[in-house]
Amino acid sequence: MDRHASPAALRAAMRSGAFTDNTSGFAPGHVQCNLVILPEAFAADFLRFCQANPKPCPLLAVSPAPGDPTLPTLGDIDLRHDLPRYRIFEDGELTGEPASIADRWRDDFVAFALGCSFSFEEALLADGLDVRNVSLGCNVPMYRTNIPCAAAGPFQGDMVVSMRPFRAADAIRAIQVCTRFPAVHGAPVHLGDPALIGIDNLAAPDYGDPVPVAVEELPVFWACGVTPQVAVEQAQLPLCMTHKPGHMLITDVAEDAEVPVIRHQD
Amino acid sequence: MDRHASPAALRAAMRSGAFTDNTSGFAPGHVQCNLVILPEAFAADFLRFCQANPKPCPLLAVSPAPGDPTLPTLGDIDLRHDLPRYRIFEDGELTGEPASIADRWRDDFVAFALGCSFSFEEALLADGLDVRNVSLGCNVPMYRTNIPCAAAGPFQGDMVVSMRPFRAADAIRAIQVCTRFPAVHGAPVHLGDPALIGIDNLAAPDYGDPVPVAVEELPVFWACGVTPQVAVEQAQLPLCMTHKPGHMLITDVAEDAEVPVIRHQD
Repeated sequence: MDRHASPAALRAAMRSGAFTDNTSGFAPGHVQCNLVILPEAFAADFLRFCQANPKPCPLLAVSPAPGDPTLPTLGDIDLRHDLPRYRIFEDGELTGEPASIADRWRDDFVAFALGCSFSFEEALLADGLDVRNVSLGCNVPMYRTNIPCAAAGPFQGDMVVSMRPFRAADAIRAIQVCTRFPAVHGAPVHLGDPALIGIDNLAAPDYGDPVPVAVEELPVFWACGVTPQVAVEQAQLPLCMTHKPGHMLITDVAEDAEVPVIRHQD
Repeated sequence: MDRHASPAALRAAMRSGAFTDNTSGFAPGHVQCNLVILPEAFAADFLRFCQANPKPCPLLAVSPAPGDPTLPTLGDIDLRHDLPRYRIFEDGELTGEPASIADRWRDDFVAFALGCSFSFEEALLADGLDVRNVSLGCNVPMYRTNIPCAAAGPFQGDMVVSMRPFRAADAIRAIQVCTRFPAVHGAPVHLGDPALIGIDNLAAPDYGDPVPVAVEELPVFWACGVTPQVAVEQAQLPLCMTHKPGHMLITDVAEDAEVPVIRHQD
């Protein structure tokens, strides 16, 4: 699949089952999203959880009504099969990673699209910074921290962060660049000593791949979109669905859009 | 002297010799400046030095013509006696710290006003951050580094930095706040390990007073207005004058001005 194909063409390939891969680097310049789908009974609490924790859970869109599998503000999207791969959780257990959830869709499902660090990584690269996980071609390392999220209903837990190492001057520049993108996790939440946020060993991330940190570099930590997925798992809902990490919703929204909504919308 | 007096009233007190003190905390909300006065023969090189090193030497104003002791874009200022105290350097040696330089003024003098960290410290305090040297009531610690400045004519040398310690989250916030103030040194140039910029011992600053850095804090380093003073000293000019450190030019310019020029100007 051509990584420069349009978001609509990529979603069509996902819809047909032809594209089930990681979306990193695809449709550059377009916002990609984390996805959380829940029964309506839990939707209000999850909405409150996102609003109370905007750094790890930057809410970009909610589906228009229970059972409606579209996100019209982000594009012509059918959430039942327009992602390359999903995760299904039942009673907090991962029970499947299908390429379509059309057969499991329910008329009480509500979907939440959350910002994703792929967007700010593009901005860092455009600024000439070296993003270690990109230059190494691996997944970004992610860690559970001791930074508590604000709880809402059954949703709670500690923040998950992603880490990218930089020399100090580049870390400062990365903070400046990411401050311009509050809808995709924004500025880092920590830098320097990992132990201060409860991370014992940088070489053993809880998710993703480890990356080397040079002696003259500082580890820089961003709030991560895995945070809501962990909160959803820990809430042990009877049923919920998410994207598979790295296998994101590709939207029509330009990354430089003032607000995360497609242009020329009704 | 009332620290909330107007800039004009404070300058009048300096002009009369009644106020010869440190200006820290005076005329809050108004830009204060570093001052460098040089013979015209060196002015073009010094201007190039400032333009090549905008972080340590943020140039806010130059006097209108050789011998003219005013800075009309910054206020109704007579540079011969409107600062509380000056420094006179002859052949690179400090030879005096008078409260007026009227008797030494020459018709070939050109004056340069450079931004000062007092301005961004107010912005940090307004954001709720603890600025250690302010809360301890001491001078900020300053250090010579191994970060080279770009040379221009006889002016060269390494950057001098000021240091303020913060917890990581506050350091990130400080970077965001200071990025909004490029005319007063802007964002930090380094944070974390001091040895990476050639500083051996934080407890022994080259200028100012040491401040404690807690285990959970990072030292954060800003380009400092002492840099041009060191460059001027090292150039060993036959004669030049500066403000005495901490004894700044108080201008009429509002700190939140879009550009560093007084309003309602002709």
